Amino acid sequence: MKIEFTPIGIIHSPFTELEGMPIQPSGAAGVKGHVEVFKDFHPGLKDLDGFSHIILLYLFHGSRGFNLQVVPFLDSTPRGLFATRAPKRPNPIGLSIVQLDKIEDNVLHIRNVDILDGTPLLDIKPYVPEFDAQHQVRAGWLEKAGKTASTRKSDDRFK
Amino acid sequence: MKIEFTPIGIIHSPFTELEGMPIQPSGAAGVKGHVEVFKDFHPGLKDLDGFSHIILLYLFHGSRGFNLQVVPFLDSTPRGLFATRAPKRPNPIGLSIVQLDKIEDNVLHIRNVDILDGTPLLDIKPYVPEFDAQHQVRAGWLEKAGKTASTRKSDDRFK
Repeated sequence: MKIEFTPIGIIHSPFTELEGMPIQPSGAAGVKGHVEVFKDFHPGLKDLDGFSHIILLYLFHGSRGFNLQVVPFLDSTPRGLFATRAPKRPNPIGLSIVQLDKIEDNVLHIRNVDILDGTPLLDIKPYVPEFDAQHQVRAGWLEKAGKTASTRKSDDRFK
Repeated sequence: MKIEFTPIGIIHSPFTELEGMPIQPSGAAGVKGHVEVFKDFHPGLKDLDGFSHIILLYLFHGSRGFNLQVVPFLDSTPRGLFATRAPKRPNPIGLSIVQLDKIEDNVLHIRNVDILDGTPLLDIKPYVPEFDAQHQVRAGWLEKAGKTASTRKSDDRFK
């Protein structure tokens, strides 16, 4: 079974190469970027300006192939791929929750951007705490490591 | 630009048709299901059992086509598609955060499932509060409507 998707826009950021990028939005606090939504989809942006945060789904277009066990940026132990947010995945879909500052025509001005410049956008969803914020969470190996994500940067291992 | 994905597993739930389904995991509290991850990807599940919650990305396979403005289940006003979680989208990728009860071999036993039985799985990511829980959020038209999602059910409008 093959599933075919087509980009609905392009994400722009200050990050033109993988090395040195923040590895999560928590490490990209304040970093600004913008999303150019293709004109055909403009009417779909109505009402989005009421939301302070949005979920971007996009293609990890800088990554090729995958390994089912990886040593993540935040660790020195090999972990199962699906217990990580590593970009090299069987279906390389990226997920970032960013702050939405404003919308001008078909351009979304966003903040806390940990995404490579030129990234193809697949979908935009509103972030809704009732659906998306979980409580009493155990975060496995990322329980401690996740807290350091705000200071760690990417290297070239996921090219 | 065409992007091609292939399912990595199948999601099983008690919901065999769209009508009557919960419309978000918040309305599916306690509903159990399981994810069959295809054997090829089994090694990628290592370490995932340390996480209490996981993000499932999947294909809205029960939906065809899309409209850029829709009247969502939770509202009576047409909204921009990207300001909703409606399943009929240009790239029909679904996102649910579910509770992970346990893993047996290549089967994930999950809870709070708002997903149609037989849904093709595209990706699994660990839910990490540092990355995924946002604070000081404005949720636009869903600010009030979102709170009723726990009691509302789907109808046939997104077939």
